[in-house]
Amino acid sequence: MSSFTNRRTIRKYKDEDISAAQLESLLYQASRAATMGNMQLYSVVVTRSAEMKEKLSPLHFGQPMVKGAPVVLTFCADFNRFTKWCEVRHADAGYDNYLSFLNAASDTLLYVQAFCTLAEEAGLGTCYLGTTLYNPQGIIDLMKLPRLTFPVATITVGVPAECPEQTDRLPFQAYAHAETYQDYTPNQLDIIYYVKEQLEENRKFVELNKKENLAQVFTDCRYTKKDNEAMSKGIIEALKHQGFL
Amino acid sequence: MSSFTNRRTIRKYKDEDISAAQLESLLYQASRAATMGNMQLYSVVVTRSAEMKEKLSPLHFGQPMVKGAPVVLTFCADFNRFTKWCEVRHADAGYDNYLSFLNAASDTLLYVQAFCTLAEEAGLGTCYLGTTLYNPQGIIDLMKLPRLTFPVATITVGVPAECPEQTDRLPFQAYAHAETYQDYTPNQLDIIYYVKEQLEENRKFVELNKKENLAQVFTDCRYTKKDNEAMSKGIIEALKHQGFL
Repeated sequence: MSSFTNRRTIRKYKDEDISAAQLESLLYQASRAATMGNMQLYSVVVTRSAEMKEKLSPLHFGQPMVKGAPVVLTFCADFNRFTKWCEVRHADAGYDNYLSFLNAASDTLLYVQAFCTLAEEAGLGTCYLGTTLYNPQGIIDLMKLPRLTFPVATITVGVPAECPEQTDRLPFQAYAHAETYQDYTPNQLDIIYYVKEQLEENRKFVELNKKENLAQVFTDCRYTKKDNEAMSKGIIEALKHQGFL
Repeated sequence: MSSFTNRRTIRKYKDEDISAAQLESLLYQASRAATMGNMQLYSVVVTRSAEMKEKLSPLHFGQPMVKGAPVVLTFCADFNRFTKWCEVRHADAGYDNYLSFLNAASDTLLYVQAFCTLAEEAGLGTCYLGTTLYNPQGIIDLMKLPRLTFPVATITVGVPAECPEQTDRLPFQAYAHAETYQDYTPNQLDIIYYVKEQLEENRKFVELNKKENLAQVFTDCRYTKKDNEAMSKGIIEALKHQGFL
């Protein structure tokens, strides 16, 4: 599994296609991931056409990977297929609720990670776009996602045209707890975030944004309370629209 | 990656421990999974003590894996650590909202799948307990999970003491869509679910439960509307309690 421990997010791709057969093989293999009651509560919309990438790009805030990758995959929590099957079998489906959304979203995200690991093992590069949740209704409309489906993750895939430095990770002690959750003291937080705060790159971000420290770069520039609250409203509206709330 | 394509859920484990070093190594390697803004919005609570397993067992409806596995891992969406760090740096954290919960839950589930793949590659067996979402408040209380954390997945891990048959999976065409979502006709649903409905095991379930077909086993016995709706309320209450809604 050296492909996994050596992995890095790849944002630049060669001008080289991924064959339908390879993509199908990887997407099918990934379905071996654990799934709730073996219901496979996900769908994946495969974007290859320039026209769809053009329309999808602004929904991901113009991140260049959308137009730069041969393949963009939008992974959707999906209780529509299962519910439709229940309907044709005269079974009383009760999956238009919040638990069912979370079950489907969980299935989907396990499937996404399984796919990424397999794709990287096959020499491909992937990038996870967190922006999927920023404007889900736009994606729902563009991809004609029916009731009881919801986009939860987008992955761009291609043959790597870069090999960036691996990013830092927190020490194991930062996120592992024995038996019960041990909350953090200020001193522990200093230790946990020490390496991250000292990184040349991060010190530059602090300077560039004229902030006192790295945490303020996150809260004031990258992920602000105002944006988070506005986008939370949009997600909840979209969940209602899709019948999960 | 034959360990992945040959995987099966393992529910029975040998009476053999997993060393702290091996567990730490696997949990650390898994942190290479993609994470939102490199924030690593997760924590994992490691249960080894018989006392904690005894208390955890009923929260997972007495599934025998909880007491039968040497290690039980409860993976939690975690914006507490990051927020506490922001607070000691006088940064105005705005992560007490729904988008932040979904971001943290996504990070966590990618991490869970990465861990499972690595653990299985190392010869261990895992079982994903979907019951984590059935009574999150019980787990929150037992594990003393603070505000801005939320349990999203539980994995039991151990040395396999069984090798069950691999379960079926839907054909690729069932969940892949080109460019936009193609909704399902009754005829397509017949094809997609044909193999599953014909399986000897599933036909037995139908007979045993005195139902007309497999879909009704799901809707009337396994995952009922009534249970789903009651548990949805519990999750939403717990999300409010933890500060995410």
